[in-house]
Amino acid sequence: MSSCPAESQTSVSISPAARTAARCTAGLPREAAWSQRRIRIGLLGLGNIGQAVARLVASAAGAHAGVHFHIECALVRDPSRARACDRPPCITNNVSAFLHGRYDLVIEAMGGIEPALTIVTQLLERGIPVVTANKTLIATAGQELQALAVARGTTLRYEASAIAGVPFLGTLAARPLVSSIDRFTAVLNGTSNFILTALEEHGGTFAHALALAQQRGLTEPDPARDLDGDDAADKLALLTSVFGWGRVDRASLEGRSLRDVSSRDVRAARALGGALKPVALASRAAGGVEAFIGPTWVPAHTPLAALGGTLNGIELHGRYVGDLFFSGPGAGPDVTAATLLDDAIEAVREGDRSGGSGFDFAQAKKDPPPHPVSQLPSRPREPLRITAPITPWFIRVEFPGVVPTVGVLTDVFGRAGMTIEHVTDAIDGTRYVLAGPARRERMDAAIHDVWRVHRLRCVAFRRLG
Amino acid sequence: MSSCPAESQTSVSISPAARTAARCTAGLPREAAWSQRRIRIGLLGLGNIGQAVARLVASAAGAHAGVHFHIECALVRDPSRARACDRPPCITNNVSAFLHGRYDLVIEAMGGIEPALTIVTQLLERGIPVVTANKTLIATAGQELQALAVARGTTLRYEASAIAGVPFLGTLAARPLVSSIDRFTAVLNGTSNFILTALEEHGGTFAHALALAQQRGLTEPDPARDLDGDDAADKLALLTSVFGWGRVDRASLEGRSLRDVSSRDVRAARALGGALKPVALASRAAGGVEAFIGPTWVPAHTPLAALGGTLNGIELHGRYVGDLFFSGPGAGPDVTAATLLDDAIEAVREGDRSGGSGFDFAQAKKDPPPHPVSQLPSRPREPLRITAPITPWFIRVEFPGVVPTVGVLTDVFGRAGMTIEHVTDAIDGTRYVLAGPARRERMDAAIHDVWRVHRLRCVAFRRLG
Repeated sequence: MSSCPAESQTSVSISPAARTAARCTAGLPREAAWSQRRIRIGLLGLGNIGQAVARLVASAAGAHAGVHFHIECALVRDPSRARACDRPPCITNNVSAFLHGRYDLVIEAMGGIEPALTIVTQLLERGIPVVTANKTLIATAGQELQALAVARGTTLRYEASAIAGVPFLGTLAARPLVSSIDRFTAVLNGTSNFILTALEEHGGTFAHALALAQQRGLTEPDPARDLDGDDAADKLALLTSVFGWGRVDRASLEGRSLRDVSSRDVRAARALGGALKPVALASRAAGGVEAFIGPTWVPAHTPLAALGGTLNGIELHGRYVGDLFFSGPGAGPDVTAATLLDDAIEAVREGDRSGGSGFDFAQAKKDPPPHPVSQLPSRPREPLRITAPITPWFIRVEFPGVVPTVGVLTDVFGRAGMTIEHVTDAIDGTRYVLAGPARRERMDAAIHDVWRVHRLRCVAFRRLG
Repeated sequence: MSSCPAESQTSVSISPAARTAARCTAGLPREAAWSQRRIRIGLLGLGNIGQAVARLVASAAGAHAGVHFHIECALVRDPSRARACDRPPCITNNVSAFLHGRYDLVIEAMGGIEPALTIVTQLLERGIPVVTANKTLIATAGQELQALAVARGTTLRYEASAIAGVPFLGTLAARPLVSSIDRFTAVLNGTSNFILTALEEHGGTFAHALALAQQRGLTEPDPARDLDGDDAADKLALLTSVFGWGRVDRASLEGRSLRDVSSRDVRAARALGGALKPVALASRAAGGVEAFIGPTWVPAHTPLAALGGTLNGIELHGRYVGDLFFSGPGAGPDVTAATLLDDAIEAVREGDRSGGSGFDFAQAKKDPPPHPVSQLPSRPREPLRITAPITPWFIRVEFPGVVPTVGVLTDVFGRAGMTIEHVTDAIDGTRYVLAGPARRERMDAAIHDVWRVHRLRCVAFRRLG
């Protein structure tokens, strides 16, 4: 089946044959390419993701890809801890010992900003390509790290940092027309989507749905980053950066916690022809970005409404191509590991094409860097201001006693400038309202008034369409 | 905003600065890269797609991408014809005159196999990169052309050849783990999807829906390739090839024409919790491929069911990543042109990274090719046999007189080994049946029997889920 010339490929220096073999995997005929190629990996972190990388490397996956991955060394907090993978030949908690290994590439699976930022900076400085799943790192320092990689003639890849299973970030970054994005609407946090799906399918309390997510290993020990939107905010910031809009000022981003949602809310949303989904929305606006994050009513016929369980998805509106939609698994150690290894293959191939030295650390130290660091750009201009958009609303109205009439509800929200499109029947002391467009501040003021005057407790979720 | 060093880039020879500028567009910081780079394009064909390419090149899009495209010459059938774009400096119907131009890259927008195959072969032979939207060409000769491009150290890209607006083919081809695909289900023909959507939304006859598609410019002068599945079959063959399954034997592919569908069918499908969509399905099976093409009932909650109008989409099931879904505009001159230009940018960038000569035809003739053509692999092994899968069915039963009872229907289809899951009420001489799994041959035999014995006229559509 192979249409590739069968040169074996043990050297890492560039040659026409190497180029041929490398490129041969990038098109229709790709089997048997690189069949002799051994890729030396340094692994930062052996937590859930790092262990999955180690298992995948030990499985048939590497050979399947026509590459022999080999983990040379892992940097960990506690080398003595038991782990669900083969023990690498070197496992250390000493950063400088790790940095003296010889790697074709380093996979960063530590998470968080430090010490990942310092170590990744040192690796890129030395011309060693890095692939990472670390959305916090890329959201915070992606532009600087990418500029450093460019200046050092090496590669930084981060496909697994948002919607881990779906390759789209690298593709869009390489294709300027399709990536002229002016709006995106996405489900970026799989744990949140799992919880809302569980609330819809099984009913029960929020605490119960959260416990279910914890049982499945879908949450961190402290689930706050998932539930309160920090994880989605990282990914939103990462995407605005990748799409070339610039760095956003996270402090001004409206985020609504998932903890406000009940199974009744999720089912009422469905009964009203929609679905309550953990949405992150951003669109370019004059002088900044309009954006918000939180549980949001989306129409049932939209692709986001169809995403169940831990699936993630993103709807992109582009200037040249119109609406695109990508979806797939958003997280999970095995999926993330597969994407990291695909990134690793792309990074090494890119190094081959550029005539790189094979990213030998010892060699890199001898070669002068192609650009002195002083040429790196200084930190870009002020971050973009985020404002919250005007949207329609889906409102839960709880009443302790007398059922509020449609007239009362139309009146109280009408005074805040909102039209009322639909009011559900009263069940168990609750009615739901579909209200027209308003700013968040107006909605908050209306909720306050309604409580003060009528003792009705309202929770308002944004609505798209 | 730019984080790229600001070297100007007028030379096409490889240098550290060139590499930096080239790579600089592939990550987070990408503005201002290539700002001085002029890409000389040869254009094969100035039909709808070729004209859209010419318009996009003349618009701000090229500058937006940080590249100055310039169309040097167009090869056309009739140079004197009026066209909705600027006239290129050279426009000719003489192939050898066209081939003497100097191009960084050639965009093939002729369609069909010949003369496209001969000309593209000559261009690749000479090391000139080619990007194409020609699914027939790639489905037929993609493997050979790709092998030729590899042997000549150049590039063939074909992202626009299936689901033109959605970049996924190049991505998957470069990432071996995510592209370990063992099944795909797709809507690959926008015209067919438009017609089924129109039948559902506006009712009326098939002829009327077809006329609407023709008014919108969505069909070829002869719509048979869209309606009878040839277009979708080309794309199915192309995908099995890109996913590394091999070449399929098109002659054994089951294709059902769209012309059998009425607006009643489409609405009945929806009433039964599904949607009738123009599906292409393929899965790897022992010794071959299971596949079919044709209007198919899909459950309403699946992403394919949500694709309206001319949208295309593909659901992929992979070994390492699970289920992915990509959707977006499948065709249209402007969308196709944008994807062709993105491919052009990727191809030229790849050439820069490989230290190519700038793809100068005159220069290429002087340089010996990196591999003699005799090293190219011979045609791959026998094409894969396609068998039709066992699926459940959605059946229209028309009766001229007495309404057939559920008992009669259960009996007649039961004798063919099918269970009956649902039978609709009789309306206007028609009932619809959801039947369980069976082979196509059994279904055909049952339909024949039902006609012979009961004078009931049945049309059966495959059903997924």
